[in-house]
Amino acid sequence: MFASRQKSSELTSVLGIDPGLTRCGYAILQVSGNTEISLTSLGVLRTSPDQELPDRLAEIAQEVEALLDEFQPSAVAVEHIFFQANVRTAMSVGQVSGLVLSAAARRGVSVVQYSPNQVKLAVAGWGGADKAQVQKMVKQRLKLNSLPKPADAADAAAIALCHIASHPLAMKIAQTQMVSR
Amino acid sequence: MFASRQKSSELTSVLGIDPGLTRCGYAILQVSGNTEISLTSLGVLRTSPDQELPDRLAEIAQEVEALLDEFQPSAVAVEHIFFQANVRTAMSVGQVSGLVLSAAARRGVSVVQYSPNQVKLAVAGWGGADKAQVQKMVKQRLKLNSLPKPADAADAAAIALCHIASHPLAMKIAQTQMVSR
Repeated sequence: MFASRQKSSELTSVLGIDPGLTRCGYAILQVSGNTEISLTSLGVLRTSPDQELPDRLAEIAQEVEALLDEFQPSAVAVEHIFFQANVRTAMSVGQVSGLVLSAAARRGVSVVQYSPNQVKLAVAGWGGADKAQVQKMVKQRLKLNSLPKPADAADAAAIALCHIASHPLAMKIAQTQMVSR
Repeated sequence: MFASRQKSSELTSVLGIDPGLTRCGYAILQVSGNTEISLTSLGVLRTSPDQELPDRLAEIAQEVEALLDEFQPSAVAVEHIFFQANVRTAMSVGQVSGLVLSAAARRGVSVVQYSPNQVKLAVAGWGGADKAQVQKMVKQRLKLNSLPKPADAADAAAIALCHIASHPLAMKIAQTQMVSR
């Protein structure tokens, strides 16, 4: 039913999403000529705890769809949370991630989930890296003048970088950058 | 942003959803003249484990939206799962419920979540009722000739009945039916 998915090996831009109900981080990275990764957009979608849950989810769905329509990414990468201590937070993160996966699939855009450890490993070189180290590595990789903020937006950029690093054609760039840092 | 929600006290029809990735139960109940509850539609949306997760979620989203558009329910009731033993199942149930809550809110349709205990209490009279007892009570309440099947569809009907029982205007009907059984 959703067979129109782009299975092309060309990776031109990636939307990274750090799913969350109160703050949902996003980042659009551009891959130019398979040699350069640059930041196009970075931010956080926010919803208020004063709103009802269905309205908050609807708002995030609408904004994620607007990002997909505006930037037409060739792939979407989403952080895959495993359920841990805070059940209520985990539930809402799951609900938001469902919206993102579905919205991408309905547009035929390839979408992949990565665990926090995979993201840290790909971006900072080891799975136990902390938020500050990830932020610093994102800054280096994207040649930014300052640390990407807020943290949720930096995480979204790290997730997109993780996807680029996992991509067969783009792997060389990421590895080169990893070695050259 | 989604302020067009029908806050009307009139409850004409309810879509009950038992969220799930492999089997997502649904039921449409009609409330006629505030005196009679009848079954309009009952079934299960299925997706194959052979498909990729984003495609499965997209398919469920599309089918839930089709139900909302076809039956124009005045309210949606969704079972609210709490995370327990099976983390993988819980995650996908959360993802599906997020799609349902968002789709309803975007259409301005009131949507409420109920815990399994609330549903059993409302339909079978006590929170510890088993699936067979719930099926039997749904059959009685909806004056069906046979047990509603499969179980996920019967659960969806129970969730819709729970919402009707919780509704101020309809509470009398539900109570009458509860006493008269």
